[in-house]
Amino acid sequence: MPKLVDHAERRAAIALAAAGAIAELGLMGTTVREIARRSGFSKGIVEHYFSGKEDVIAAALEQMNKRYLVREEKQTSGRLGLDALRARMYCVLPLDKETRQEWKIRLSFWSLAAIDSAARKEQRQRLKLTRERFQIDIEQAVEAGEISVAVDPAHAAMQLSSFMAGVSCCALMDSHYYSKTMLSELIDNTLNKLVTGVCL
Amino acid sequence: MPKLVDHAERRAAIALAAAGAIAELGLMGTTVREIARRSGFSKGIVEHYFSGKEDVIAAALEQMNKRYLVREEKQTSGRLGLDALRARMYCVLPLDKETRQEWKIRLSFWSLAAIDSAARKEQRQRLKLTRERFQIDIEQAVEAGEISVAVDPAHAAMQLSSFMAGVSCCALMDSHYYSKTMLSELIDNTLNKLVTGVCL
Repeated sequence: MPKLVDHAERRAAIALAAAGAIAELGLMGTTVREIARRSGFSKGIVEHYFSGKEDVIAAALEQMNKRYLVREEKQTSGRLGLDALRARMYCVLPLDKETRQEWKIRLSFWSLAAIDSAARKEQRQRLKLTRERFQIDIEQAVEAGEISVAVDPAHAAMQLSSFMAGVSCCALMDSHYYSKTMLSELIDNTLNKLVTGVCL
Repeated sequence: MPKLVDHAERRAAIALAAAGAIAELGLMGTTVREIARRSGFSKGIVEHYFSGKEDVIAAALEQMNKRYLVREEKQTSGRLGLDALRARMYCVLPLDKETRQEWKIRLSFWSLAAIDSAARKEQRQRLKLTRERFQIDIEQAVEAGEISVAVDPAHAAMQLSSFMAGVSCCALMDSHYYSKTMLSELIDNTLNKLVTGVCL
């Protein structure tokens, strides 16, 4: 009996190979041939699973994003409110090889999403889910009396999540200036403002 | 006598054509052939001025960035402190065709800079100059008594400039949620916190 092919597994393996290629060679350097080479499948099989490079990039980001969400879930697990929020903010920063790889793929996908409406739609959904996770932490922090009821959780979630996106992009570009110490101070400082209500 | 060739002008024309192509077709869709077609020069001439696509992208970003800096200079001219800071924050937002084009090219360049150390070095320099322009506004605002002397201008400049980067990326992805009204409120709200020292 011929071995059954696990299509989802193959697709995931190709997406993972693509993620590695994009993070190392960039969008332009990543070819279907290179993805095939890294995944161990033929060019024909890669093309069977993905209709084009845009498709592979989207799958690579989905793959990386899944990994990111598992890590975030793990690092915020058992935490609530401010404590969870702090962990969530740390979790996205490009401070090691794994998170830097995620940001490289994210940026590649963003540059694709900027011109491709289907990719942009996916990205909008991801941004929304990110804001919602931030919002839940903030709501819990308000409930627990950790931060003032005067804080609007939806607005604060939007502010914090876009701030973290910008800071992460900057840190990917300049890991010396945006050092781990500086980023820790930044997160502490930002959360402290939410807690004390004092900005200075 | 043969017409003298203005090399800088040719280079700029090719970079401008490349910028248009990247903003419309993305990094992957932009070929040397397409840049040649749009600039009206031959593929050979494009290749004479730029050693590769990375080169053209860097030049396209430089071109767009120059335009951005001219606009920023114009919109902040005659303004000081908080007033200049507000104008500077508005100036970068992807609210019209021109600024959206700039962000598309910026994102393409960032995804290149994430894997290319020469491009990253350029980007670090640009981030530094951006922080410095923010810092000067904040220093003036402190001097004018518009914001408290307790604010550290360098730190606030870093925070505001990375925040604006993140917000702009989010707005490029979701112009409906990050509407003009929402972005205006966001800027007013952020500046208001600096002025009052109250975060709520």
